[in-house]
Amino acid sequence: MVRRMDPSVATPRAARARRARLAARHRGPVALFAGQAPPRNYPDAPYPFRASSHFLYFVGLGLERAVLVIEDGDATVYVVAQDPADELWLGPVPGYDELAALVGCDVRPLTELTADRLEGAATLLAVDEATRLEQRARLGRAPGGPMDDALADAVIALRLVHDEAAIAGLRAAAEGTEAAHRAGMAATRVGPREAHVRAAMEAAMVARGMTPAYGSIVTVHGEVLHNHAYHHPMRDGDLLLCDVGAESRGGWAGDVTRTWPVSGAFSATQRTMYELVLSAQRAAIEAVKPGARYRDVHLTACRALCRGLVELGVLRGDVDELVADGVHALFFPHGVGHLLGLDVHDMEDLGDRAGYAPGRERSAQFGLSYLRLDRDLTPSMAVTIEPGFYQVPAILRDAALLDVAGDRLVRDELAKFADVRGIRIEDDVLVTEDGREVLTAGIPKDPEDVEACASA
Amino acid sequence: MVRRMDPSVATPRAARARRARLAARHRGPVALFAGQAPPRNYPDAPYPFRASSHFLYFVGLGLERAVLVIEDGDATVYVVAQDPADELWLGPVPGYDELAALVGCDVRPLTELTADRLEGAATLLAVDEATRLEQRARLGRAPGGPMDDALADAVIALRLVHDEAAIAGLRAAAEGTEAAHRAGMAATRVGPREAHVRAAMEAAMVARGMTPAYGSIVTVHGEVLHNHAYHHPMRDGDLLLCDVGAESRGGWAGDVTRTWPVSGAFSATQRTMYELVLSAQRAAIEAVKPGARYRDVHLTACRALCRGLVELGVLRGDVDELVADGVHALFFPHGVGHLLGLDVHDMEDLGDRAGYAPGRERSAQFGLSYLRLDRDLTPSMAVTIEPGFYQVPAILRDAALLDVAGDRLVRDELAKFADVRGIRIEDDVLVTEDGREVLTAGIPKDPEDVEACASA
Repeated sequence: MVRRMDPSVATPRAARARRARLAARHRGPVALFAGQAPPRNYPDAPYPFRASSHFLYFVGLGLERAVLVIEDGDATVYVVAQDPADELWLGPVPGYDELAALVGCDVRPLTELTADRLEGAATLLAVDEATRLEQRARLGRAPGGPMDDALADAVIALRLVHDEAAIAGLRAAAEGTEAAHRAGMAATRVGPREAHVRAAMEAAMVARGMTPAYGSIVTVHGEVLHNHAYHHPMRDGDLLLCDVGAESRGGWAGDVTRTWPVSGAFSATQRTMYELVLSAQRAAIEAVKPGARYRDVHLTACRALCRGLVELGVLRGDVDELVADGVHALFFPHGVGHLLGLDVHDMEDLGDRAGYAPGRERSAQFGLSYLRLDRDLTPSMAVTIEPGFYQVPAILRDAALLDVAGDRLVRDELAKFADVRGIRIEDDVLVTEDGREVLTAGIPKDPEDVEACASA
Repeated sequence: MVRRMDPSVATPRAARARRARLAARHRGPVALFAGQAPPRNYPDAPYPFRASSHFLYFVGLGLERAVLVIEDGDATVYVVAQDPADELWLGPVPGYDELAALVGCDVRPLTELTADRLEGAATLLAVDEATRLEQRARLGRAPGGPMDDALADAVIALRLVHDEAAIAGLRAAAEGTEAAHRAGMAATRVGPREAHVRAAMEAAMVARGMTPAYGSIVTVHGEVLHNHAYHHPMRDGDLLLCDVGAESRGGWAGDVTRTWPVSGAFSATQRTMYELVLSAQRAAIEAVKPGARYRDVHLTACRALCRGLVELGVLRGDVDELVADGVHALFFPHGVGHLLGLDVHDMEDLGDRAGYAPGRERSAQFGLSYLRLDRDLTPSMAVTIEPGFYQVPAILRDAALLDVAGDRLVRDELAKFADVRGIRIEDDVLVTEDGREVLTAGIPKDPEDVEACASA
């Protein structure tokens, strides 16, 4: 039975074209599993179903427990057969023909997916254990062999370069993400807890039939990079860091961070640091263009940040040396961004195979080691650009890191920025033929605009 | 490392008392697994973690991947050790001593949970496959033997009878649920899609640090019992059925359905049918008291509904015979309710072992077969009471069911209620020493109140 299908999304033509491109690139049969909703506390109370991104990409619809099989260029989607009792609980469900029209290929009952149909099929390892068990049972082997690696490479090559339908999906996600951030700024005031703003932001998505693309970060403790607590009261003088993105109905992700003053007005020090982060972000965005190496985009942001910190007196020394030694990572410990697509960290289920070009490996240096992407950019890739400035206690008391910085860190000057715990500014950027397009440019970002929206 | 711990909930004394009661009731060691957040699209983007209800009950806090071990009355909670890198991403996390104070027993690193500590331990099968794999690996066997059944019976006996802390949790959930329903009524108007109301209802929970206890149903197609689509526009003349409940920060569930007119005013036929369902619900609530058999509460609702339908001319014949033959199930096909606790269908992970008293089994009759609870009620049990009236196309064209009804179904009279697709009215009810307390009594229910709130 087809569960929780969203009728607002159906791109049979785009899905067919994607399958054709995959068949041309990868010889031999392929089986992609949609996965299933894991139980939250008992089987009848599952988490909301979210199909595997690979399945979504090549089918368009998230059909729970379905399997896409491509062989000799022919695609078939096998779906769980409808139980007559389901109609009572779930309403009328589309038949095989109706589904076939929606996905642009044959649709058959899952009972017909016999072992011989899967003989020699390559697959991609599912993320959930239940589907992994099913993969092993159906394929008679654990996924992960050379054939599967070859399939992964073919899928990565396709999904790296967004087609028109994908870009439309990213634009839809950006629209929902903008609505969320505007709602969040409007809901911010001194007094309530962070959860109050989170609720407003997520409601803007839910009202659009969307869902958060990842666990929202809405926090006055921006120095905790992945803070998922929402219980702190918002106080006068706090900055609120909101890393919140919408997932479109078709599964495409938005990923945006804005940082705004709870009171509606930055302090002088907050404004100074905000403008510095913003200038680093703009410099990194300007560096996004076909042929640019993403690690250099990252280093552009690092240099801009260091330059500003030297100007402020917080750091001393040569900017290039500071960056080469990783001193910037005292304040900007993470990467400048990552791939964006159906996943917020697109294709991260495939590990660095997706984010790192062949032959490139993660650095061992603190800071650079967290960079999730190091490819040469090409038109129609989408990435995030999200530098930040944080005062993380665990970092600022780390002897090894402080040793590298030595007297290039000026604690007395840093102390002046005590009211800046964390600032991050993040946009979603599409690489174009002649540069870039910021997909999330509509979300207030200039300090005056941010103040105006947060104080309205 | 302890992830996403909610600092707002800690009842070390209650948890300790529960563990003592379990140790008194179940001889031999026990191991309860908290479980882990399943990945949504890749491991770093998980669903929000929700601990196993059994673990939550005996520990109080949801600690991801932790294991509670009770042996000879001594309890230890084993937790994943903190990785130093975690502090950067997740902020300062509580140490073992701090955690021990929060849960009222020893807390040790999971690495100390060696096989000999688990020798002969009974457990309850986890709901997610990843934790099931871990259970098999740690215990050296698949859960589900007689020892585990004995543990299940002991846990059921305890969780059936809510202690003070549990009742406080249910009251908190009721409070969040009331806020959601009031927000939903206030947000309803002709024009927007159902998702607009869903967003308002869930935002009321999120703002309180709560979460939906189950997939919200917010639909103008109430005849689809588990409708999880939200894309229909709300039109003048529609009824909006909202089955929405909050889960408190400690994990306790609310589960309430209200049905209100989109326009703010019931039509005459809608009002008639609404009042009938309400009278059936009130009759069933009145039947809730210590010693009452829950199936009889269900049948009370069935009789009240049939009596009303006979008075309206929709059904003909003797009320008791109609109910005995299951004719009411043409319009009220599900059970009148279920256990309520940490799970919305409390302990449904244990199957009918929890809902059905020993020696009682599900009926095979359509309608009664969906009854999830058949126990004799005792003080401090909590149940839902949720009769409904639906015109389900799949039922009203089912030859076998229509054959049983024969000419006792009067289609012409039924046709007058064409603008009633589905009405359900549901409250959460605590059995008291001398009867019952409706925990969700604050949520508007009388037709005038519902109209007033929906039109405000």
